[in-house]
Amino acid sequence: MSASVLYMSMSLDGYIAGPNDAPENPGGDGFMRLHEWYGFGAGGPNASDLTSDEKSGFDQHFLDEVNATGAVVAGRRTVEQVDHWGGDHHGVPIFVPSHRPPGPSVANYPLVTYVMDGIESAMVQAKAAAGDRNVLVHGAFTAQSALAAGVLDELQIHQIPVLLGAGRRLFEALPSRIELEVVRVIDTPEATHIRYRVRH
Amino acid sequence: MSASVLYMSMSLDGYIAGPNDAPENPGGDGFMRLHEWYGFGAGGPNASDLTSDEKSGFDQHFLDEVNATGAVVAGRRTVEQVDHWGGDHHGVPIFVPSHRPPGPSVANYPLVTYVMDGIESAMVQAKAAAGDRNVLVHGAFTAQSALAAGVLDELQIHQIPVLLGAGRRLFEALPSRIELEVVRVIDTPEATHIRYRVRH
Repeated sequence: MSASVLYMSMSLDGYIAGPNDAPENPGGDGFMRLHEWYGFGAGGPNASDLTSDEKSGFDQHFLDEVNATGAVVAGRRTVEQVDHWGGDHHGVPIFVPSHRPPGPSVANYPLVTYVMDGIESAMVQAKAAAGDRNVLVHGAFTAQSALAAGVLDELQIHQIPVLLGAGRRLFEALPSRIELEVVRVIDTPEATHIRYRVRH
Repeated sequence: MSASVLYMSMSLDGYIAGPNDAPENPGGDGFMRLHEWYGFGAGGPNASDLTSDEKSGFDQHFLDEVNATGAVVAGRRTVEQVDHWGGDHHGVPIFVPSHRPPGPSVANYPLVTYVMDGIESAMVQAKAAAGDRNVLVHGAFTAQSALAAGVLDELQIHQIPVLLGAGRRLFEALPSRIELEVVRVIDTPEATHIRYRVRH
């Protein structure tokens, strides 16, 4: 069954972007530190519980998973920073929840749909478009909206062994407690990859 | 060699205490949710990489580790909430970094020492008292001070699969980025136990 999934690299102190995040400094200072793990696929002293396939390919595995999604729900801030990926996110439909109409470039992007009536509606449309495939959720604000609205199904957290000390957090105030289920943990020196399922 | 170690149960969104933390509601609303894992020692579907000894005893293991420490460094807020454990924290010396002199009850507690000249000094004294054993660090504020001062050596995080949404965070602003090393991950349904070493 189709699930909506957030993939996010996060420091132990909860930051997904460093300080001074701005269009000319995307992700802020130290952002790349959170993404170094990608490409470190050979395993290491802490990776002894992985099979050799996982050791050699789990970063590829995450990339394959992202590429296999059937639709994208992405926040306006995220999509505007990258001009909607030029209208093409691996060829799948992109839904942008926003209370304001889209900018002019979107007229050229037939796969991009702005959804004016909320995150729930955006997710319903994205799941319909995705069919049996998953919906990829992009952006911290959108992820939090989806969590609060009960329409985020899974979180794939790449937890990085670093304390950034400042920046933008993935989880700011949520309206209520949300229970999760640990689906899978992959233990490597560069990141602890934890997959959670949201208990709706 | 002696190491200073913080043990902390933390929600995925970084909270170690719920909202409305107060003397008559210690740890705040939902605090016990973060400590339910303790006692769930039988393992489960995600615990397949544990040996049977670990499955039956890893909560006991953490308790034994805490009990084997040779000294304690604890924040004033923490110790005053529990009146310095009546002066006896498993029989080991207790060091309290504080800029103010101790309250009157401390005169009855020969194992409790208030350290007025900073967290570094408190840690030096605690390590000297602990000998080859570890120093247990108590309290979020004290842990952050020790991190910022470069005198916290290890963090044992019990990461709980829940989003509390509000409360008190373990990691607030730190003066600079701090690199960690993943020492060990124990994967159970109730908590992901991650041991980090601070790269000084």
